[in-house]
Amino acid sequence: MTVADERLTETRTRDAELRARAARVIPGGMYGHMLVNEHTMPPSYPQFYERGEGALTWDVDGNRYIDFLCAFGPMLLGHRNPRVDAAAAAQQALGDTLTGPSARMVELAEVLTGTIAHADWAMFAKNGTDATSMGIRITRAATGKAKFLKAAVAYHGANDWFTPRTAGVTDADRANIVEFEYNDVASLRAAVAAHSGDIAAIIVTPFRHDAFVPQELVDPAFARAARESATAEGAALLLDEVRTGFRLDVRGAWESLGVRPDLTAFSKALANGYAIAALVGTDALSAAASEVYVTGSFWSSAVSMAAGIATVREAIAVDAPALTRSAGARFKAGLEAQSIAAGLPLELTGPTQMPLLVFADDVHKKRAFAFTDAAVRRGVLLHPWHNMFLSTAHTDEVVDEALLRTQDAFDELAALDV
Amino acid sequence: MTVADERLTETRTRDAELRARAARVIPGGMYGHMLVNEHTMPPSYPQFYERGEGALTWDVDGNRYIDFLCAFGPMLLGHRNPRVDAAAAAQQALGDTLTGPSARMVELAEVLTGTIAHADWAMFAKNGTDATSMGIRITRAATGKAKFLKAAVAYHGANDWFTPRTAGVTDADRANIVEFEYNDVASLRAAVAAHSGDIAAIIVTPFRHDAFVPQELVDPAFARAARESATAEGAALLLDEVRTGFRLDVRGAWESLGVRPDLTAFSKALANGYAIAALVGTDALSAAASEVYVTGSFWSSAVSMAAGIATVREAIAVDAPALTRSAGARFKAGLEAQSIAAGLPLELTGPTQMPLLVFADDVHKKRAFAFTDAAVRRGVLLHPWHNMFLSTAHTDEVVDEALLRTQDAFDELAALDV
Repeated sequence: MTVADERLTETRTRDAELRARAARVIPGGMYGHMLVNEHTMPPSYPQFYERGEGALTWDVDGNRYIDFLCAFGPMLLGHRNPRVDAAAAAQQALGDTLTGPSARMVELAEVLTGTIAHADWAMFAKNGTDATSMGIRITRAATGKAKFLKAAVAYHGANDWFTPRTAGVTDADRANIVEFEYNDVASLRAAVAAHSGDIAAIIVTPFRHDAFVPQELVDPAFARAARESATAEGAALLLDEVRTGFRLDVRGAWESLGVRPDLTAFSKALANGYAIAALVGTDALSAAASEVYVTGSFWSSAVSMAAGIATVREAIAVDAPALTRSAGARFKAGLEAQSIAAGLPLELTGPTQMPLLVFADDVHKKRAFAFTDAAVRRGVLLHPWHNMFLSTAHTDEVVDEALLRTQDAFDELAALDV
Repeated sequence: MTVADERLTETRTRDAELRARAARVIPGGMYGHMLVNEHTMPPSYPQFYERGEGALTWDVDGNRYIDFLCAFGPMLLGHRNPRVDAAAAAQQALGDTLTGPSARMVELAEVLTGTIAHADWAMFAKNGTDATSMGIRITRAATGKAKFLKAAVAYHGANDWFTPRTAGVTDADRANIVEFEYNDVASLRAAVAAHSGDIAAIIVTPFRHDAFVPQELVDPAFARAARESATAEGAALLLDEVRTGFRLDVRGAWESLGVRPDLTAFSKALANGYAIAALVGTDALSAAASEVYVTGSFWSSAVSMAAGIATVREAIAVDAPALTRSAGARFKAGLEAQSIAAGLPLELTGPTQMPLLVFADDVHKKRAFAFTDAAVRRGVLLHPWHNMFLSTAHTDEVVDEALLRTQDAFDELAALDV
């Protein structure tokens, strides 16, 4: 198969029709991380998708893409993974949202506590935001303290505490946030010292994965300082693995550093696309966890739990972190070499399985927009300013096909002079 | 089929084993509305369920129940409704959580705006709490004001503003709530007057469905006063139909009163058990709705939207509100007659399709606990203090079978002298 064989028709008839219809019945035509418009994404990106299969996805006009977004994280084992879908279908034949939980809830809690090193218990919800919010509430109930520390800019969900845009959010909603700089031990310690005695939790992501800027792996000294500061304060360390869960280390992202949190929030990849979130924690927080009021109509739904059990088992069986790290390394090496050859050097920052592309001398993202636009027209879905995701379906063959297409995109970019 | 043919074995071996396992890996063994223990439910209730079919459900020990809880609301068309499940399965074969929304999002928004009288647009999420919270945030963005009015005790979700237990919730989280008494126009007007100029929204349920106490239909004068007060203040009227949606009136619960809200929150029954929530609103709030930051990893998932389209269409086609109202009226008449004959009068309060049972002279719910315990041992799932739900699968035959069994339960209750 050559690039020419698979060039996109670039038909956008149905996408355009759906955008026009959406503009009439959805505020702004779309919202949240799903929004595709001139401010968020290059012009050639589709807004609406039709189907997915492994590392591939198709838009509503039948254009095929190699998908390096993976639904912004949920797809760890590829779209429509047969093992996960079979487990989900078997449960669906019995029931999903029943009048109480099914045995799947206990089984999934056992799988998580048996997999994640620090986890003694698990609770389930639907959104990553549910899990991080539940975690903060539990730490407040456990400590009787109100404030929590987070890294500046870091995203931990879309509730009133965290949301990156503040329209409709009151000052009171944000009264108890204290910020520090990620990977800056002195800044963390200063924040702790300034609010000592009133800190319920330190919430932090396993590495710095803010949008727009280069990603940074965690400095082990920073991870240890976060652990030590939380312990010294009698506060909890809440690791936000909503984005990283089962992608870096199935035992927990900081396990290889010897740093164990008190609570970890999971969601996206936990059930390979079925809607679920989980908070896991240590026995010391179990009483507080049973004291807070947290619930949701679909939090006991069995299908996503059956899918979660199958996903975690499969992720362990195939070593999903190693597979995706290796595929990401191949993609990173290829793309960076192409970029240098084109005289437009870029770096894939962060863990190779969750890379964020950053062109040199591209503060305004003009190159990133032009390059990803050229790539999407060649059937490769990249992101100009958000981290991307590899899945276990991104085989060497898939990565190599993507690199053929990105070479073509670089040829276009080099001719453009952006 | 006689009651004797279908008496429960009352085996609880597997349920007991799962409870023991859950106690080791889930805080308190269970949490939220899913919790079954001596404080929340009579002793004979199962904690874990195996499957559902129409109006029936089975626990993990194979005991069969006629289900008047309907998963606490999601089941409008019966467990595993074939039309809804077929629509969901067809979408699942294409993909669920893709890298962007599917056409199903636009189609469902069109179905909702075409069905709900006041709705010009729709947005989607996962939890009822997401929809009510998103609604409040939009009203704050639109008005620049912070406070919202709600009825005392009324439940509008499990976020920090609303949660009925305050463990882990700070004073700041609740700084902007103002309460009034449901159905009390003077109390509503006093609350408005006391905070005039700083009110973003009035949030209210279509009828009073607080737990433990008799339900109350809305006084039309109160509904009109809520509308008038919101309009006079430049605030929004947010109708919380999370529990009532598509059960009272598919056009909107207050449409027959001539009272239209600015926003309505839906969730539970919208996709007959598939996890979804929706907020619908008027054009006047569209700009604010596109300004707030709201998002979730699974908010564009296509399967629950396909299920939602099928559910709303089927609910309209069969007139689900009329069917369930009629089935509920049959159940109410039968149960109340049995209770009078037994000398233990009870009333099914509220709309017949969402009844809450209240025994006379039973402040401490001893009779309610004893009766529902006797009923569950005879294969009828009722609730001692929360409203129940009828589905379109609750045919006359199903209701009559349930009444045979509740007669037997009354015989036991009358002999017990509680």
